Amino acid sequence: MSQTPEPTDPAAARAADPVFDLHRGGKMEIASTVALDGRDDLSMAYTPGVARVCEAIAAEPDLVDDYTWVSNTVAVVTDGTAVLGLGDIGPAAAMPVMEGKAVLFKQFGGVDAVPLCLATQDVDEIVETVVRLAPSFGGINLEDISAPRCFEIEQRLKDLLDIPVFHDDQHGTAVVALAALEGALRITGRDVTTARIVISGAGAAGVAVARILLAAGVTDLAVTDRRGVLHSARGDLTPVKLALAVDTADRTGRTGLLADALDGADVYIGVSGGNVPEEVVARMAPDAVIFGLANPTPEVHPDVAARHARVVATGRSDYPNQINNVLAFPGIFRGAFNVRATAITEGMKLAAANALAALVGDDLAVDYIVPSPFDPRVGPAVSAAVAAAARADGVARR
Amino acid sequence: MSQTPEPTDPAAARAADPVFDLHRGGKMEIASTVALDGRDDLSMAYTPGVARVCEAIAAEPDLVDDYTWVSNTVAVVTDGTAVLGLGDIGPAAAMPVMEGKAVLFKQFGGVDAVPLCLATQDVDEIVETVVRLAPSFGGINLEDISAPRCFEIEQRLKDLLDIPVFHDDQHGTAVVALAALEGALRITGRDVTTARIVISGAGAAGVAVARILLAAGVTDLAVTDRRGVLHSARGDLTPVKLALAVDTADRTGRTGLLADALDGADVYIGVSGGNVPEEVVARMAPDAVIFGLANPTPEVHPDVAARHARVVATGRSDYPNQINNVLAFPGIFRGAFNVRATAITEGMKLAAANALAALVGDDLAVDYIVPSPFDPRVGPAVSAAVAAAARADGVARR
Repeated sequence: MSQTPEPTDPAAARAADPVFDLHRGGKMEIASTVALDGRDDLSMAYTPGVARVCEAIAAEPDLVDDYTWVSNTVAVVTDGTAVLGLGDIGPAAAMPVMEGKAVLFKQFGGVDAVPLCLATQDVDEIVETVVRLAPSFGGINLEDISAPRCFEIEQRLKDLLDIPVFHDDQHGTAVVALAALEGALRITGRDVTTARIVISGAGAAGVAVARILLAAGVTDLAVTDRRGVLHSARGDLTPVKLALAVDTADRTGRTGLLADALDGADVYIGVSGGNVPEEVVARMAPDAVIFGLANPTPEVHPDVAARHARVVATGRSDYPNQINNVLAFPGIFRGAFNVRATAITEGMKLAAANALAALVGDDLAVDYIVPSPFDPRVGPAVSAAVAAAARADGVARR
Repeated sequence: MSQTPEPTDPAAARAADPVFDLHRGGKMEIASTVALDGRDDLSMAYTPGVARVCEAIAAEPDLVDDYTWVSNTVAVVTDGTAVLGLGDIGPAAAMPVMEGKAVLFKQFGGVDAVPLCLATQDVDEIVETVVRLAPSFGGINLEDISAPRCFEIEQRLKDLLDIPVFHDDQHGTAVVALAALEGALRITGRDVTTARIVISGAGAAGVAVARILLAAGVTDLAVTDRRGVLHSARGDLTPVKLALAVDTADRTGRTGLLADALDGADVYIGVSGGNVPEEVVARMAPDAVIFGLANPTPEVHPDVAARHARVVATGRSDYPNQINNVLAFPGIFRGAFNVRATAITEGMKLAAANALAALVGDDLAVDYIVPSPFDPRVGPAVSAAVAAAARADGVARR
């Protein structure tokens, strides 16, 4: 006798959910770009012909960029410790996200991306593993690695490798947030150098958003963690947070809790999760700007935010002004790969943000501060700006 | 004034060689298997929908095989130390061969293969790197790693991982050589248990060919290295060679040089490179079988071999009876993946060889002892036989 599944049965829930149908067998595959229709093809793509290509690369190592897929290929590397909002779910459970990332890399940047989910969470082991893998890739995209380990892993890999290393949760978010902020400040008639800005969250995204805002000229910035504003008198800060405190609230003398920092602030950028009470939001400056980027539950619900702010953005696709990393990472790697950049510099990130902001142009509106991910101009514009910045910064190899 | 390239100029040589045209940009790419045509697609293939798939896998780890590409994907791992006949050319220069392998995996087995060329030649580092990568792959294909390191790396990975680990230079060669030998023995009216067989070469291929012949019932086998027949009185043998000596020439008491071993032998299998003089070949038994598998220069030129042997095979595509690994590895992994095998057993390799031999069937002839790689029956026949053997050996997970 067969048993009728309970509605709460996981298998029945999967069967009823089209997302699982779509994911069956995964979302990606390897495809050949050469024909193999007979012995002649085989003798060119494989032995004996391929030996001549191997010998040429052995003699001139840079030829690997011309005659293999390496220079167009990025490793999407995770340890599964900070996957979406799900936290430490491990390498296997992280794979669907990494495949999704790979699919987005290809569709929006023409970049071949290989998902690599590592069975280690040790910083030294992650670094040495990626270094050993590096000959196979033109770039490294770190993904969903928890803070503060992600900062050290990225910095050490940047020091050790001469290919782009990019932690998307940090810098992808930062680039798109800056682009959106530029639009929001234009609408509200503010200047980046004088706007009073508060970021909640000092993890991967919070630190990177703060750093790119500082690089863009922001001077009045406070970053909070669970214990309030980062300032160097606190005594409980990690080295990364302490360095950030020195460059942010220490300059203005701000201290206290998030609610204190938001009192009179022009801009709130939430990358912390949690919920900011409406009475706190209500005390921001007139024509406030609120970005609640936690997914799927923003720090300030967009309907609440709209009652107190002129410009509202989220990470969600079902509200206007979606701040989505996919606006950034495919074009950034496309641009870096097009000039065979040896790194992704601060200048390249700023150029990407400015290119996104420029695409909005005269269409700027309270519900249109960043382009749609499906705007076909996005990838080419970001990639061209990034390539030009790589040349300007001296990291382009061609 | 432009300079006319000399005929010896490498760039000019590349420009004149269609193999380099074919390799420009590499031979493979990533392709998406899902549509991403708008926000709804994005919300299913990526956030927020993908989070449900991640959570399901976190709760039931085996679901990674159903809802990601992992269970159809093999890592093609090399350290670049024994690439084709070129030797230790390093990881970058090995990439064209690994891409070629990946293309063959896909075309002949429907297996997605990712080339990973490692920047280390240390056994411990290679093993730990592959172990850390294992969550991303359904199997590991080791490639072009020099002996004797390849034996230890393969054995340790087999012990540590519960997915198929297969060193193709050993076992792919062994499977196809055994299939060819079965055909050659049928033609010459010999029995595998009594044929007198000599293998020159005790590297990766030689050891594996010897081992599969023993598993197939061969009793009179001598293996030689540069110093002659492996026998346990020699005192200069590595542990791998010593173990092989005990199972081969020690049983018959044979000693001496390759020429001594070949005197009166029924079968010669060369996987050593070098050249066997014609006067030595001439002293083999009547109706001899000669496989000269070194590429591109067989140990016995096929025209010379034909003067003294009834059946001749090489690794070359421009002579009959090409002993080519592509007959084996795509179908072996296809079959293993189809039943989600946790290992590739001796039984699965023997089954693959027998399936190849059976495909030749009644068409068996002195110039047709193995099927063509482009015979469309090969992949399905090998894969079905391997899957059945996996079930029989208790390593199938479905």
